[in-house]
Amino acid sequence: MRIAMGLRYDGAMFSGWQTQPGGHTLQDHLETAIAKFIGDSNTKIKTVTAGRTDAGVHALGQVIHFETEIVRPDWSWVRGVNSFLPKAMSIGWAKVVPQEFDARFSAFQRTYCYALLTGPCPVPLVAGKAGYLMQAPDKTLNVLAMQEAANYLIGEHDFSSFRSSECQSNTPIKTLYQLDVIGHGPWVYFIVRGNAFLHHMVRNLVGTLLAVGSGKESPVWVQEVLEAKNRQVAAPTFMPDGLYLAKVSYPDVFAIPEPNLYNSLIPVSVLKS
Amino acid sequence: MRIAMGLRYDGAMFSGWQTQPGGHTLQDHLETAIAKFIGDSNTKIKTVTAGRTDAGVHALGQVIHFETEIVRPDWSWVRGVNSFLPKAMSIGWAKVVPQEFDARFSAFQRTYCYALLTGPCPVPLVAGKAGYLMQAPDKTLNVLAMQEAANYLIGEHDFSSFRSSECQSNTPIKTLYQLDVIGHGPWVYFIVRGNAFLHHMVRNLVGTLLAVGSGKESPVWVQEVLEAKNRQVAAPTFMPDGLYLAKVSYPDVFAIPEPNLYNSLIPVSVLKS
Repeated sequence: MRIAMGLRYDGAMFSGWQTQPGGHTLQDHLETAIAKFIGDSNTKIKTVTAGRTDAGVHALGQVIHFETEIVRPDWSWVRGVNSFLPKAMSIGWAKVVPQEFDARFSAFQRTYCYALLTGPCPVPLVAGKAGYLMQAPDKTLNVLAMQEAANYLIGEHDFSSFRSSECQSNTPIKTLYQLDVIGHGPWVYFIVRGNAFLHHMVRNLVGTLLAVGSGKESPVWVQEVLEAKNRQVAAPTFMPDGLYLAKVSYPDVFAIPEPNLYNSLIPVSVLKS
Repeated sequence: MRIAMGLRYDGAMFSGWQTQPGGHTLQDHLETAIAKFIGDSNTKIKTVTAGRTDAGVHALGQVIHFETEIVRPDWSWVRGVNSFLPKAMSIGWAKVVPQEFDARFSAFQRTYCYALLTGPCPVPLVAGKAGYLMQAPDKTLNVLAMQEAANYLIGEHDFSSFRSSECQSNTPIKTLYQLDVIGHGPWVYFIVRGNAFLHHMVRNLVGTLLAVGSGKESPVWVQEVLEAKNRQVAAPTFMPDGLYLAKVSYPDVFAIPEPNLYNSLIPVSVLKS
């Protein structure tokens, strides 16, 4: 039997998603919690995830699946597994899915949001939950220029310039459906929706757009970066703190629940844009 | 010379405001940082604060003052003191004020906001930054009933029923100008504005309103609680996690800067309501 689950977590508290010999990854904690709930420590639970987020990256709508012979009510999975998870991660829903559902390969679209706070002073109340860019009191980022630059990236492209050297994807060709840059007081939100993403791609996109927003580069420079297909010409990878995997989309036939978008500092109106 | 400063902090990281022999309070860290910036460890800096927040309580708009003979540009105070503060607290502004300004006694009004998240599952991304009330998936708090109950509390009253036994205030008589209960999806925000507050008063008000919101008590019960002037009849003190000192108001003559309300998970539209 195949079970799917929705997850949210504070990525700052873990060493990324993927299991490691040292433990303390999200996958390690989740698989241990499921095994404890099942009460069978001999059966190794193996989870498959929609997106293997890096250390420091958060999720509102992560989706995973795994195989089990255990039958429990959906709500019992949620409450039971949560009781064995660290506080910084939690299951929002669980359901039995058909065998052809795959948390990774059935997903046709992923939506990330990057929350960035700018200003002259550090930001204690959102530390670890938002990116931060020091700005003098009289300066603001040029949101319109960043949106103009972002528009060059929409569509199917070879995103090699935004790909980390450790990326394991079969192809650098991905499709971006949406890349919105939204200003709100000292906040800038980046909404990035695409079929799939390369390793570090969103953080590299954000870093590159910020070079435009701060006036260092013009919007059309981003088109040159894209066409260069060379990681060296784009900006450095921006900090993970503000990055959220907001939603993973699956064909309607699987009836995968919507993530609860109310559980972070990002306004719901931004996440639904 | 008297200097005033605006402060914001994540109260979950400290043992409350007031200095303690063991250290690690907000006041201890602030006074140490100011002394380090001044570069004179022999002069003990003594700060006076608008509101001595408890452990776990946050601030967006805390105000303090202290005496010094050192002359520095305003911005130099901000950057300099911040460089010696823990990451979980930071100065937003600093300015020279007249001797008759007193961070505590010149304040004629304080505004607190309590951010409460309800729902069936724990909330990793807002842990420590919001109160939490477990609610079954099919249940929501009755915001209208809480607002009806809150209206009994507006005005000048003896708030002994909402006063902690450790309260050092001269009088239990305080004036509430505003007590708004605002629902927003699974969130409930309480905006509380008054001339001054008793120890634990806002957390006791929130706990008591939640007894109404969850249907345990009727709105008029809150009037009975108020009139009883007896701490035993009100609800238990609610958790500190969701409480924010949002703003302290002073006479215009002092030209105290507005707090930056954009630096938390509470929507600015709520904080300005």
